[in-house]
Amino acid sequence: MNGAQSLIRTLVDAGVDVCFSNPGTSEMHFVAALDSVPEMRGVLGLAEGVVTGAADGYARIAGKPAVTLLHLGPGLGNGLANLHNARRAHTPIVNVIGDHATYHKRYDAPLESDIDSVAGTLGGWLRRSDSTADVGADAAAAVAAAQDPPGRVATLILPADVSWGDGGKPCAAVPPRAPKAVSETTVKQVAEVFRTGEPVALLLGGAACREPGLRAASRIAAATGAKPFIETFPARLERGAGLPAIERLGYLAEQVAYQLDGIKHVVVAGTKAPVSFFAYPGKASDLVPDGAQVHTLATLDEDVVAALEGVAGIVAADTEPVLAPAERPELPTGELTAQNWVQVIGALLPEGAIVSDETNTSGLLLPGATAGAPRHDVLTLTGGAIGQGIPVATGAAVAAPDRPVVNLEADGSALYTISALWTQARENLNVTTVILNNRAYAILRMELQRVGAEGSGPKAKSLLDLSTPDIDFVRIAEGMGVPASRATTAEELAEQFARALAEPGPHLIDAAIPPLL
Amino acid sequence: MNGAQSLIRTLVDAGVDVCFSNPGTSEMHFVAALDSVPEMRGVLGLAEGVVTGAADGYARIAGKPAVTLLHLGPGLGNGLANLHNARRAHTPIVNVIGDHATYHKRYDAPLESDIDSVAGTLGGWLRRSDSTADVGADAAAAVAAAQDPPGRVATLILPADVSWGDGGKPCAAVPPRAPKAVSETTVKQVAEVFRTGEPVALLLGGAACREPGLRAASRIAAATGAKPFIETFPARLERGAGLPAIERLGYLAEQVAYQLDGIKHVVVAGTKAPVSFFAYPGKASDLVPDGAQVHTLATLDEDVVAALEGVAGIVAADTEPVLAPAERPELPTGELTAQNWVQVIGALLPEGAIVSDETNTSGLLLPGATAGAPRHDVLTLTGGAIGQGIPVATGAAVAAPDRPVVNLEADGSALYTISALWTQARENLNVTTVILNNRAYAILRMELQRVGAEGSGPKAKSLLDLSTPDIDFVRIAEGMGVPASRATTAEELAEQFARALAEPGPHLIDAAIPPLL
Repeated sequence: MNGAQSLIRTLVDAGVDVCFSNPGTSEMHFVAALDSVPEMRGVLGLAEGVVTGAADGYARIAGKPAVTLLHLGPGLGNGLANLHNARRAHTPIVNVIGDHATYHKRYDAPLESDIDSVAGTLGGWLRRSDSTADVGADAAAAVAAAQDPPGRVATLILPADVSWGDGGKPCAAVPPRAPKAVSETTVKQVAEVFRTGEPVALLLGGAACREPGLRAASRIAAATGAKPFIETFPARLERGAGLPAIERLGYLAEQVAYQLDGIKHVVVAGTKAPVSFFAYPGKASDLVPDGAQVHTLATLDEDVVAALEGVAGIVAADTEPVLAPAERPELPTGELTAQNWVQVIGALLPEGAIVSDETNTSGLLLPGATAGAPRHDVLTLTGGAIGQGIPVATGAAVAAPDRPVVNLEADGSALYTISALWTQARENLNVTTVILNNRAYAILRMELQRVGAEGSGPKAKSLLDLSTPDIDFVRIAEGMGVPASRATTAEELAEQFARALAEPGPHLIDAAIPPLL
Repeated sequence: MNGAQSLIRTLVDAGVDVCFSNPGTSEMHFVAALDSVPEMRGVLGLAEGVVTGAADGYARIAGKPAVTLLHLGPGLGNGLANLHNARRAHTPIVNVIGDHATYHKRYDAPLESDIDSVAGTLGGWLRRSDSTADVGADAAAAVAAAQDPPGRVATLILPADVSWGDGGKPCAAVPPRAPKAVSETTVKQVAEVFRTGEPVALLLGGAACREPGLRAASRIAAATGAKPFIETFPARLERGAGLPAIERLGYLAEQVAYQLDGIKHVVVAGTKAPVSFFAYPGKASDLVPDGAQVHTLATLDEDVVAALEGVAGIVAADTEPVLAPAERPELPTGELTAQNWVQVIGALLPEGAIVSDETNTSGLLLPGATAGAPRHDVLTLTGGAIGQGIPVATGAAVAAPDRPVVNLEADGSALYTISALWTQARENLNVTTVILNNRAYAILRMELQRVGAEGSGPKAKSLLDLSTPDIDFVRIAEGMGVPASRATTAEELAEQFARALAEPGPHLIDAAIPPLL
């Protein structure tokens, strides 16, 4: 058994049985070994950002890591942005990067580069397999590290000769650790905060964004008058009819200032205290209101759901959560607008949908329109590195082949990793992509004003414009094997969206939406 | 004057007047400042690999750097593969990366990451601007460092508040250094090597790959019987009728072993001694024949052309170079094959063309077919990180608007940075892209065998297959605003290629070529 075979066998035995890959010569033994371990599924991406984003989406839904296969330093570079998003989502990923043979590195061949330093910036777990006999144990350690709460990117660098060498030994899975328990003292202290009678905000993140955490938070809020919020960009948020509808903290500092106005205590549960996404001249970076106190109920590696339930047991023992009623918007009519496209989605979103949301400015009104839709999961852009939505949808569909995946995608963001559509076609994945095509980097038009860049003229505006020439996503999707159509009215969007959901396999709708702002 | 304005003013004063950019919020003041310095041209790329690859292509043709504008760590990650290729090409690039405001970094906002460590792996020049007053001087230093022989990526990290702050001071250009002179002693010693009567190979790289260096090398070879070779992947190679036709060293170790068979001395001039691109089980990494001596005539930062002319003056004072006659292949007929498509290119390549060559396996027979075509420049994949050809062609066309640019591009490689086509349409660049569409990662099929990965079965082969579904580059190009057509016969390719060259603006031809191997 060679090193590659021991690696894949170990991964499969640890429950990691999907490999998103974009291999090169140094990974050929890994590729060849796929045939000797039939349980491992190989999914090809045509660019590494597709591979890493798909692994992120897969794990958010599957609840366990996939393995990525990247080619040397440039492959890691191409995949780095979506690994950054995965890092911010605390997504478990076993990130295998092939390297030159150990004895070949000193020759500084053209593809030689410093993989370790680049991978080190991901701040997760990082190891280089030095010998074939160790590969199995390294792989088992990588799987455990990836899943160690709250989850991380575990990178294993695999030199070609270590991969092709004989003497590989599969290794038994190392059970991942459970989240740490929050102390009873902390639970009681935080419960007291809710009893002060002063205005409290309860900020939820991580595992708290799923049903049990949301229910506990809703009970606390209902019993004490505290205002609950979801962190701005949750990795996976459960919502819809029958679940507590809890508002997300806004992207803009101005929104957050409004949401937290008058708050004296911010209780953070499975997330961190809010900070501004970017700095703006003369505005604060720390979004905790002046004079408010921050209390940590649970850090990211602690059992936030049990802690919330503990607090609820103290302050809301007899209080039920407030659940969203089942209610949908009416189907709108007329030209598509920034207001009515979200009503189409709200009216038609199917039961059990997974929504990969990279709508940026176009999606500002989406949460209101879908709060009473059937239960669904929302996967958001956790790290701000655009180009995440299509790959995440792709990976989510691999993880949950029986659930409809809806990818709501800004035009500018779509272009970074557009070839993920081809993977959707190849794997016949049930993904319906709606491109919110406002023909601009609309968010940057807004930011150009917000950063106070006065005096910007035609050259600056031109660099934020995507209309010369217009991008035809119908043709691009068809070129990658995905059936596609264009919608310019609400009726067209509704008809095309319903049809796409009813048919198996991927579809794309290029929706002409004017900019919101 | 703010920091961004002082930066752009300084760059323009130093002759750097093209900015390839994919900006975000932290770069909005740079974008705004473009309107206050009219000499700077902003060129938008829809992904950072387009931006960095275009800057590489631009500088290879313009002979001076462009500036890139990237957004934070993820933007650098997306652009890293083509910066790696630029590093291997010794291309001067002023690589500006926006960062969060200095005071914002400690909040660990979602887009925070370790930019410095990733940029550090490029091994070039790296500086972080700490104060607005220093930005001008930092920019001047970056331009000088980028151009310091042999050329490099000079990265300037620009925090948002340093960019928007008042008190920017433009700085006068720092003249770049000239290449170091090779000592007369070295020239004489190396000249003696050519007089030993033993078999000598003369390996040319860097500046030696343009007319004066090629002529000197050809004289040396003609006078002494030495075998001249071009390094495997030159950044810019001048060739065609009226220039010496010097063979490139092969990509495969087996080819190089054949080319260097019996050689006793390898003289390297503006490059390094040959090494294998990858390691293969049981094969040598060092491609210098056993027992042969390596002699360095000129290192990468030395004046290799003067050194070659010095040697030629000693050993070939009365010898003329051997120049390629003007001769083209006949236009072929019938179904396209791996053999005949290169004849179409050879028959029709226009005078003064710039060829961006990312043909990989499909291009093995190209050099023979174009050796007697009119004079042209060839830009190759210097670092092995695929996804370079379309961006490099884009940048080259910006640098030389009056020259026809021909991009010969493998299908698999094209998908990494396909949105460069949109930039070609937006800027109305004269680029004719021919996709060699063999519906496979054909090079990896070959490598799967070469690395000895026996026992590879259907799963492995499937991961190297691009035919399920077929990729329709005509539709993709049209979706990005580039007129396109499909060729399946030699006649169609010839007709479409000639027409594309005759019309202004970009065109794409999706050429159905069976795999060579």
